[in-house]
Amino acid sequence: MRLLTFSTDNNSAQRLGAHLKGTTILDLTRAFETQFQARAPDWFGSVSNLLKGGEPAMDLAQSVHDRATSAKSKDDSQYYDTADIVFHAPAGDSAKILCVTMNYSSHAAASGTKPSDEPYFFIKMPTLMTPHMAPICHSKTSQKHDSEIELAVIIGKRGKYISRDDAFDYVAGYSIINDFSFRDRRSLSDDPNSARLHWFTLKNLDNAVPIGPWLVTRDEIPDPYDLEISLTLDNEPDLKQSGSTEGMMHRIEDLVYHASNGLTLEPGDVIATGTPHDVAFGKQRFLQDGDVLRAEISKIGALVNPLKAET
Amino acid sequence: MRLLTFSTDNNSAQRLGAHLKGTTILDLTRAFETQFQARAPDWFGSVSNLLKGGEPAMDLAQSVHDRATSAKSKDDSQYYDTADIVFHAPAGDSAKILCVTMNYSSHAAASGTKPSDEPYFFIKMPTLMTPHMAPICHSKTSQKHDSEIELAVIIGKRGKYISRDDAFDYVAGYSIINDFSFRDRRSLSDDPNSARLHWFTLKNLDNAVPIGPWLVTRDEIPDPYDLEISLTLDNEPDLKQSGSTEGMMHRIEDLVYHASNGLTLEPGDVIATGTPHDVAFGKQRFLQDGDVLRAEISKIGALVNPLKAET
Repeated sequence: MRLLTFSTDNNSAQRLGAHLKGTTILDLTRAFETQFQARAPDWFGSVSNLLKGGEPAMDLAQSVHDRATSAKSKDDSQYYDTADIVFHAPAGDSAKILCVTMNYSSHAAASGTKPSDEPYFFIKMPTLMTPHMAPICHSKTSQKHDSEIELAVIIGKRGKYISRDDAFDYVAGYSIINDFSFRDRRSLSDDPNSARLHWFTLKNLDNAVPIGPWLVTRDEIPDPYDLEISLTLDNEPDLKQSGSTEGMMHRIEDLVYHASNGLTLEPGDVIATGTPHDVAFGKQRFLQDGDVLRAEISKIGALVNPLKAET
Repeated sequence: MRLLTFSTDNNSAQRLGAHLKGTTILDLTRAFETQFQARAPDWFGSVSNLLKGGEPAMDLAQSVHDRATSAKSKDDSQYYDTADIVFHAPAGDSAKILCVTMNYSSHAAASGTKPSDEPYFFIKMPTLMTPHMAPICHSKTSQKHDSEIELAVIIGKRGKYISRDDAFDYVAGYSIINDFSFRDRRSLSDDPNSARLHWFTLKNLDNAVPIGPWLVTRDEIPDPYDLEISLTLDNEPDLKQSGSTEGMMHRIEDLVYHASNGLTLEPGDVIATGTPHDVAFGKQRFLQDGDVLRAEISKIGALVNPLKAET
């Protein structure tokens, strides 16, 4: 399934949906109500809620999904067009967001950094998550906005000290994350420790975590190392970041192992697996007001966000 | 007021309380119900909810508090002893937690670091918050547990690009935070960038953010630079960290200014203002299973947490 959190307009409650194909979205909350003539559980309020409900919640969603899609007569009230809904991030406000830096040899080589033996994680604030189609603030506090497309791994089961062999049992599925950076805010200029990157300010301005459009469950992507990954600017089609998840150095099982080494991972937590290489930072073409970013990963879809000048 | 989130046992709902004096806690949720013979608003479910309700919510809490404490006859059902309640963190699961490093000259001098011209922030995960009296996991993944007592500033109003002059208008009040660190997890051993501190893993294992016991509203602390601050181990009274908030280099108004420079601060967000100097790291006496930490700040109170070996 391709599970999403959506609402029908900016003021209505969040619901659970499934992307079927093209621009068709199935409203799983409504489908439950129609099938059972009963109120859907709070699990169906968002992808994050569903993940917190564990296996029984996911099984119920799958069963409602399968009944609806195999029904002979379609009930129109259960379907939406992607253009008519508001997307929300497929992870909750209290998700932990762990990002691994320099995880593709192409990125490490371009930046002159030797890959580390262990993954180097930094963290981003979950309240900065920005869903599909929502504008990203082109902050007046930075002149060097940069973006990095990454495969996001979304955790589906609570765990700590997870072994590499068991790692995928804890993965609910995948999404797309665009790790925004503000390159002129990376270090304190006259600080003797300026080599010490200022991770917080480099990575955590408003809207710095575009994520979505949906979570694709793990069963749909048996090989996460065979995905095409690309970032395009709609108004400048030549400028793009592209690669394959094959280039990932620290693999998902390593990342889950290291991330959970002393830290309990919870359903809905996100691990961003690194980016192939920098568009803007390498080419010195930083992002501007009006740019529309399209972050695409095969078998998942496209996460689209326009940049909008802060007023 | 000294506002706290509490429950009457581990399985009951969270309520809003106020610490009166000694070991007396007023149940503001119950007091509202008694005074108005009506259901309390969801604001009264936690300190975090109350802060999200803004000025009207805080005014209502103050009024319920004042009526209850000035009542001639006391209704016993509104009062608890601190020993009979379960404390919760006075900030919500989606709070942003910004910590400033090396903000006391004594700490900077002890570590051989030149203070920076601008504050250097790192972030901690809000889901690691651990309330007063709750045990801190003595993680098997580190042999060098360390603690740092800090004055926590809790934001009360949404804001961005907040000027130094206006900064205190955005401060709801103060609490105590114990910034846990795992000193043997600070850098990647054979990484050429090992000078680059591994902030995530150094600071973010389970329970690494003890905070509480309550939020003291700003009106009770007109001068936040005149507070005695100390950390003691109950079983080793000589070993302690002590100082005064007078030693803070980047002041609260600077921290609010820098933190909000491109990032929207929300009610309930926390700024940890730095620690006077290290106990364990300096003396090489790291924390152990069985240690009981008492982090005390004058005019606020004491945040007490035992360390408990991970099993």
